[in-house]
Amino acid sequence: MAGGVAAAVAAVSEARLWQRLMEMAEIGGFIGDGGHHGVNRPCLTPLDREARRLLISWARRAGAAVSVDPAANLFLRLEGEDPSLAPVLTGSHMDTQPQGGRFDGIYGVLAGLEAIEAIAAAGVRPRRAIEVVAWTNEEGGRFAPGCTGSMSFTGFKPMSAFDDLVDRDGIRYADALAEQLAAEADLPRRPLGYTPHAYLEAHIEQGPRLEAEGKEIGVVTGIQGSRWFTVSVEGRTDHAGTTPLRLRRDSVQDMLRAIGALNTLMHDPADVLRFTVGSIRVEPGTSNSVARKAEFTIDFRHPDKEVLLARGDAIAGVVQASMTSCTATVEERFRALPVEFGERVPGVVAAAAEAQGLTSLRLPSGAFHDAQFLVPLCPTGMLFIPCRGGVSHHPSEYAGPDACAKGARVLAEALLALANG
Amino acid sequence: MAGGVAAAVAAVSEARLWQRLMEMAEIGGFIGDGGHHGVNRPCLTPLDREARRLLISWARRAGAAVSVDPAANLFLRLEGEDPSLAPVLTGSHMDTQPQGGRFDGIYGVLAGLEAIEAIAAAGVRPRRAIEVVAWTNEEGGRFAPGCTGSMSFTGFKPMSAFDDLVDRDGIRYADALAEQLAAEADLPRRPLGYTPHAYLEAHIEQGPRLEAEGKEIGVVTGIQGSRWFTVSVEGRTDHAGTTPLRLRRDSVQDMLRAIGALNTLMHDPADVLRFTVGSIRVEPGTSNSVARKAEFTIDFRHPDKEVLLARGDAIAGVVQASMTSCTATVEERFRALPVEFGERVPGVVAAAAEAQGLTSLRLPSGAFHDAQFLVPLCPTGMLFIPCRGGVSHHPSEYAGPDACAKGARVLAEALLALANG
Repeated sequence: MAGGVAAAVAAVSEARLWQRLMEMAEIGGFIGDGGHHGVNRPCLTPLDREARRLLISWARRAGAAVSVDPAANLFLRLEGEDPSLAPVLTGSHMDTQPQGGRFDGIYGVLAGLEAIEAIAAAGVRPRRAIEVVAWTNEEGGRFAPGCTGSMSFTGFKPMSAFDDLVDRDGIRYADALAEQLAAEADLPRRPLGYTPHAYLEAHIEQGPRLEAEGKEIGVVTGIQGSRWFTVSVEGRTDHAGTTPLRLRRDSVQDMLRAIGALNTLMHDPADVLRFTVGSIRVEPGTSNSVARKAEFTIDFRHPDKEVLLARGDAIAGVVQASMTSCTATVEERFRALPVEFGERVPGVVAAAAEAQGLTSLRLPSGAFHDAQFLVPLCPTGMLFIPCRGGVSHHPSEYAGPDACAKGARVLAEALLALANG
Repeated sequence: MAGGVAAAVAAVSEARLWQRLMEMAEIGGFIGDGGHHGVNRPCLTPLDREARRLLISWARRAGAAVSVDPAANLFLRLEGEDPSLAPVLTGSHMDTQPQGGRFDGIYGVLAGLEAIEAIAAAGVRPRRAIEVVAWTNEEGGRFAPGCTGSMSFTGFKPMSAFDDLVDRDGIRYADALAEQLAAEADLPRRPLGYTPHAYLEAHIEQGPRLEAEGKEIGVVTGIQGSRWFTVSVEGRTDHAGTTPLRLRRDSVQDMLRAIGALNTLMHDPADVLRFTVGSIRVEPGTSNSVARKAEFTIDFRHPDKEVLLARGDAIAGVVQASMTSCTATVEERFRALPVEFGERVPGVVAAAAEAQGLTSLRLPSGAFHDAQFLVPLCPTGMLFIPCRGGVSHHPSEYAGPDACAKGARVLAEALLALANG
């Protein structure tokens, strides 16, 4: 078996993986700030389907069996010696943020394909099947919140819970999903969900630590928790030239007070806590009218469950206490508690990196990933590769061919270890 | 002559004026918040032209001569005994804000028509002609800034200065203007601009003072100055879950600091100063990305020129000093210094109100009006009628039939006094 592992790892092709990453980046590609090659490929769109067709063509040439589930999650299966055993699952997602890059998500899918292709090419037959999955709508860039594919698969929420999400054009998630499934009606359909033997997802770090500390592989120990809120401040529109400030119910001003108070609530000298107001919408939004309504989003994350719960629960009260003349409503749109991966999968990843002579670092994930929904189902883990400056969700997001190949080699070895376990 | 004035004032019809206000409100009318009847009638649109055709039909029945100038300002002329003398000019505008009401602007045009119709019906012939004007694009709701018609007429700016303004659909002002003039090619064309003998504009107060103090007529003493700015804060987009706050260049956070500092700069215990942030736009505007760019508007007004200049000039420095990690640009989009109307026209208005036994109050205008551009040309003034709660630019904007008629009667008497002077 050790010879088989070495052959499979040796069969991982840096050139092929890089070529595929670049070819995928053409689908939805654009030239962004600073001349960087960005990707804008929203889920459940013609671009998404074009990317999936390309992936399927590569997978079939590599000998993988393709199928799709009712949540449009796409599976590429390398059969094992015993097809009756629970497969090992790997993968990530293919959708991007509107100003996304060439690696976030798609790297984990293509590294997974590279791993099973290398394993097959080396003539290695794992005991369990290995399946590569492309989860639907991880980013939430079109339909927020994200991870609807993995949440549906794992039963974190019933699939119907997402039916009425709408995109900016008012299109319902259920309708976009039905359109995707209709366009892929030629693919074998599988039922929703199963219990994998293990789940291992490869991804760029999206943070600066591996690069800063000169490490080649990140052994991910868990994922911090997230809570997302939408706050709506309602006042009254008035004439900007005539209405005395003391008589106004200015939603912009009360919003500013609320965000200022939330900055204080969320202050963290250790800089572990993540608090972001990324979207603000003001109505009517004309320069010479007092704004009737101001709406903003909160993205709050922390690895410590107690902090996540205590400070998150304090948000509504802090917002209400900030209102001077307006009324506010605070809606929690999404909550995921912090998860710990335990030792099973991270141990396998660390051992594979060590066997290949690569340096590694144990670290938690700052970003949100489909992996967190797999934790209740099976031993779960992730491996990170460094990315330049820790930047993601931006056209300048970058990981070099060498870093990408190293991650794929560790992934191949770890998947084989799990599939033979 | 005194008998003629009394007959003209008596010929003002409360019912006819109200009926016309309500009929006009159907053109662009909608049912808004609270079931109020709002009006959305942008300038230089088919709705604007429909409203102008209706006005023209009434004016012609009243014996007025209709003409249009190259800025699409529309004139209704009641001839005087000596057509060679400079006319007295009255009027206002017919366009509205997107969430506008039934009185702002259109009241001054229809009160002017009511006045000349009453004067004509009473068989009174003033020494000078009286012209009613409907200025193009006062509100700036479609093409900002507003008052382009009166600025063109008075030479405040050359008409060509507005050619390249664009609306939200990318349509140029010059093209919209050409379309309007082509649609009204059947109307006699007059040259742009002349020096009126005097200008008097009737308008709803758009503020709370007349109602609060129980006065029927506002004798307007001048118009406060306005400065409009757009501030753009540029940072960098980053992942909301991974990027430590100290490494971010978060445009939303620096924008908040800038507006907070501007609130301090603009603090006025007397509550005379008007400072409004009415529009905010954030990019990319997704909840889980740090915002790369935040843009906001400033509407700053004050009746004292020194305050307007000193604090307005301080804005850019205060914004720059608020930046911690982003860069900011501050652009002044519009500036109009405060104007004083002097005593000539306000004295005539006050005398007319007194002669009719109406209570009046001298007050400055908080809102911006076409009248301010007439000040360098001729004796200028305005008269206000109370409006409910001081509300304007909103469907709930309201002035009752009685208040509207009182304003029209004072306007008729004042116009006759000016036209005979």
